[in-house]
Amino acid sequence: MHSGNPQLPDSTAVAEAANRIAPYVWQTPVLRQPDLDRALGAQLYFKCENLQRGGAFKLRGACNAVLQLGTEALRRGVVTHSSGNHGIAVATAAALHQVPAHVVVPDNAPLGKRSQIEALGARVVTCAPSLAAREACCAQLIADSGGVLIHPYDDAQVIAGQGTAARELLLEVEALDTLVAPVSGGGLLSGTMLAARSVAPGIQVLGAEPEQAADAHESLRQGRRITDLQPNTLCDGLRASLGAIPFALLHEARTEILLASEAQIVAAMRLLWDRLKMTVEPSSSVTLAALLRQGERFKGRRIGVILSGGNVDLDRLPWQEAPVYWQR
Amino acid sequence: MHSGNPQLPDSTAVAEAANRIAPYVWQTPVLRQPDLDRALGAQLYFKCENLQRGGAFKLRGACNAVLQLGTEALRRGVVTHSSGNHGIAVATAAALHQVPAHVVVPDNAPLGKRSQIEALGARVVTCAPSLAAREACCAQLIADSGGVLIHPYDDAQVIAGQGTAARELLLEVEALDTLVAPVSGGGLLSGTMLAARSVAPGIQVLGAEPEQAADAHESLRQGRRITDLQPNTLCDGLRASLGAIPFALLHEARTEILLASEAQIVAAMRLLWDRLKMTVEPSSSVTLAALLRQGERFKGRRIGVILSGGNVDLDRLPWQEAPVYWQR
Repeated sequence: MHSGNPQLPDSTAVAEAANRIAPYVWQTPVLRQPDLDRALGAQLYFKCENLQRGGAFKLRGACNAVLQLGTEALRRGVVTHSSGNHGIAVATAAALHQVPAHVVVPDNAPLGKRSQIEALGARVVTCAPSLAAREACCAQLIADSGGVLIHPYDDAQVIAGQGTAARELLLEVEALDTLVAPVSGGGLLSGTMLAARSVAPGIQVLGAEPEQAADAHESLRQGRRITDLQPNTLCDGLRASLGAIPFALLHEARTEILLASEAQIVAAMRLLWDRLKMTVEPSSSVTLAALLRQGERFKGRRIGVILSGGNVDLDRLPWQEAPVYWQR
Repeated sequence: MHSGNPQLPDSTAVAEAANRIAPYVWQTPVLRQPDLDRALGAQLYFKCENLQRGGAFKLRGACNAVLQLGTEALRRGVVTHSSGNHGIAVATAAALHQVPAHVVVPDNAPLGKRSQIEALGARVVTCAPSLAAREACCAQLIADSGGVLIHPYDDAQVIAGQGTAARELLLEVEALDTLVAPVSGGGLLSGTMLAARSVAPGIQVLGAEPEQAADAHESLRQGRRITDLQPNTLCDGLRASLGAIPFALLHEARTEILLASEAQIVAAMRLLWDRLKMTVEPSSSVTLAALLRQGERFKGRRIGVILSGGNVDLDRLPWQEAPVYWQR
């Protein structure tokens, strides 16, 4: 059973999602940073979804999907596969609505993520770390439990939910002319495009993607979904292929995808930590990286940037050597 | 020549400073984070001075001092010694007002800080890394240039300026019952106390200090300035001894100082990076560390926390190993 609406979502679905999920998600702040403005010669408005419940925008879509399940589906519960932000989001949404959740996690996933999902009350099911194994395990779980799949991006309700971040930004900040979001499976970017269509119709919506995981860029350039590219990027949140529904929406809207190299992404991430003083994940840094790469083009613009998440593995930082590492 | 007013500053001085420096400093946001609220069982309001121009609250005091110099003093310029946030603040304030600035920096200071101060147009003078050498070098510079010393904390105008952060917080968030700021030389804490006295008279103002640099705690407990303790803390911004003017103000107000161990400070810093998604420096983490240490005491309270700065040396983080370190 799939929660997805076979019809493409529209701007109304985003507005409805915003009302539906308002009691459960946090309205995140919009921050500015003059040094970054100066670096780009533009005005940047950062929508801080790294400050969202769970540390990423993902709760918006998961919550919107869970809130539209019928009574019978709510009893059976929800199923997804993800060891990352979507897994946490589905577990959180399920816990908020007291729905059973089953999250398929590859057996090589960090222990910390797994226990975070379990702490939210979800059942974690491990499988081999291949996509095939994950999908098979997920299908089996759905067959056994009768649960509803909450797909991370190829789902109309999830897409509508993700669009609510951009909607909040556009309602708060007037007269933006550009809006940039990272693209992976495309749930966030297509939702962002739908939100803009009604709230700020004239705005240019752009995606940003690592050069080394540029399937969305290629798919939209060629006008057909490319699903066989092997991603090779440190952006662990941007390795999925563009989904069918996001592709249809973004293709129809002729959405342009900007690119950034791995080095540019690391440099932008460092700039965000250093100047915006925000811990953002690599996947969230691709937007600023791509803007800076084409600096001249964006001079003088008023640009909204969706900072999608801030879940980095701080265990890997040298906290034990604090006196050495943390002093100025 | 010393810029300090021999009289103790008062709440009016803070209100005047707020008007005076408003065109030059940024009004920083106040952020909340429900997971941290839950950890303490209280409501926390973080005043994010790590997002201040220059990455710390220090510009407030430096700016207030520079803006009150007479024409002749403005021509001669300002002098200070600091390789940290105060040096950057004085260089920034001087640049904003086109005043010559001389900053004495120990010759073992990180090259990055030195070049940051030079990039702001200040003249950097190096000396041996002892306090005696720094003071001697500073005195010589003042004698040679006729410049005005902008002391980092033992200065009425600097104290009044630092108090403007708390003033903004108290004017923005109603009905706080507790306000916590880190204490080192005491400029921020005494200014915070003065701000609270007029804007929120009933509020409890607390300082927070590392156990291993607890001279303010001892000084206020014994009722006399203790200046011979050797600090041994990773909080590089909290190693100064409580100044004479801050001591007089805090002693008169019977301000209590909370303590935290080094391990508690690192844990709180990690919590702020992980949950608030903010890069804050160790010196800014002592407040949350001290609150958590006495958790029961603060249950149910509405607490303002001054996050004083976010200048950590990101060069020391393993950016080159990004693929290893930054993935979830």
